[in-house]
Amino acid sequence: MDILDDVSAEGVRTRRFDLAREGSIIPGLLWTPAHATGGRPLVGIGHGASGHKAESYVSTMGRHLAQAGLAAVAIDGPVHGDRRADGGSDPYLSFLEFSAAWANDPTVTDATVADWQHCFDALQQLDDVGPGPIGYWGVSMGTILGLPLVAAEPRISVAVLGLFGSVGPTADRICSDAAKVSCPIRFLAQLDDELFAFDHVLDLFRLLGTEEKSLHLNPGRHSAVPSAEFFDSGNFLVAHLLGTTTAAGA
Amino acid sequence: MDILDDVSAEGVRTRRFDLAREGSIIPGLLWTPAHATGGRPLVGIGHGASGHKAESYVSTMGRHLAQAGLAAVAIDGPVHGDRRADGGSDPYLSFLEFSAAWANDPTVTDATVADWQHCFDALQQLDDVGPGPIGYWGVSMGTILGLPLVAAEPRISVAVLGLFGSVGPTADRICSDAAKVSCPIRFLAQLDDELFAFDHVLDLFRLLGTEEKSLHLNPGRHSAVPSAEFFDSGNFLVAHLLGTTTAAGA
Repeated sequence: MDILDDVSAEGVRTRRFDLAREGSIIPGLLWTPAHATGGRPLVGIGHGASGHKAESYVSTMGRHLAQAGLAAVAIDGPVHGDRRADGGSDPYLSFLEFSAAWANDPTVTDATVADWQHCFDALQQLDDVGPGPIGYWGVSMGTILGLPLVAAEPRISVAVLGLFGSVGPTADRICSDAAKVSCPIRFLAQLDDELFAFDHVLDLFRLLGTEEKSLHLNPGRHSAVPSAEFFDSGNFLVAHLLGTTTAAGA
Repeated sequence: MDILDDVSAEGVRTRRFDLAREGSIIPGLLWTPAHATGGRPLVGIGHGASGHKAESYVSTMGRHLAQAGLAAVAIDGPVHGDRRADGGSDPYLSFLEFSAAWANDPTVTDATVADWQHCFDALQQLDDVGPGPIGYWGVSMGTILGLPLVAAEPRISVAVLGLFGSVGPTADRICSDAAKVSCPIRFLAQLDDELFAFDHVLDLFRLLGTEEKSLHLNPGRHSAVPSAEFFDSGNFLVAHLLGTTTAAGA
């Protein structure tokens, strides 16, 4: 793992890294409490299509989790961010190319699962991360590629998913993997989602194999998740991973 | 208002009262912080069909809210609890008689709204309640009779509703009142609700006129709301009424 940048501000240390796997590079960002020593649970944050590891809500969540005492990592998804020659500067182009890859390249999901697992392995070698339980936060493309990760990775003990349903080129895989999910899940949904209709989102929620699952539905379009819901979803992970009973009682 | 009983335990003062309105008696319970002085927001708690003002989850919520600094009041609903000669000792009989009244007595909803408003008026005369914003918590029958209250009472600034849908003898009234609701709403729903199918529950949620609304859906039957969800719904009221930002970010 090459650390490309290492800065601390407002109580959070941010490390930018490149991690090699099978000849390709996984570009990532790691947030931890500044001056942290000793192990702590790690959360993977999967960004949405068109975005990247450093976009506003991803780094806001990473910093929020680190301020609560966790480690958090985001990596660029396939054909996104620093995996691209243009650095992901054109969100529509990233979105278009992901749509094509999703439809036509059956290896995309497994490659992303392997990237995450390789990333967790490497980061858990660090003194201020260490071995232990892992959480996952990812909606929309973060669920398309992240639900199979949650189903496959036994270290993941809690996750936030959503803004996606039982549809799309990989619907069979997603629905099959949903049944394998056994950890507590917070599932975010938007009543007026223009990309994935609520009926399909509800279908996918129903398919989740875990008994401990809760769907939070708010009015508005795909990207209009309320700020309070967003932060509460992070606090849900904190409560589970740090074993604290927050005001959310989660 | 006749105070029939007044005891304090574990930081909570509990007063049992009878309040007269138009020749009938409203039997109630008031929970406040022990040794409280000065005004504080008040929450009305509407119990479900077959229950009463003192049943376990109602008094648990009342005590939880009082421990957070609020005043909370529960009253027996129509044909329930101490409004009955048998004191509500047979839940099936209360349930049966409410079902009949709901279907055949068009005055039940308005009488309950008037009971609540009379109760709020009387309690806000107390030194340790006083004037101010009011919250409401009531699911199932607590929504059948409470949603019209939330629509009608301008002092109510936040509410928890749910476990009910766009069905039943008063469906037209409920759906019409839903559109008039303008305060923040947390709406509880159960995926496998055997009394009110989720499709109808979702319909009623859609009809709520407020933009600030969130539906929380959990697996299980009508009465299987998870404990964490139950307490979180109380904390949602606390956060709004006391203006605190809790971990729930509500």
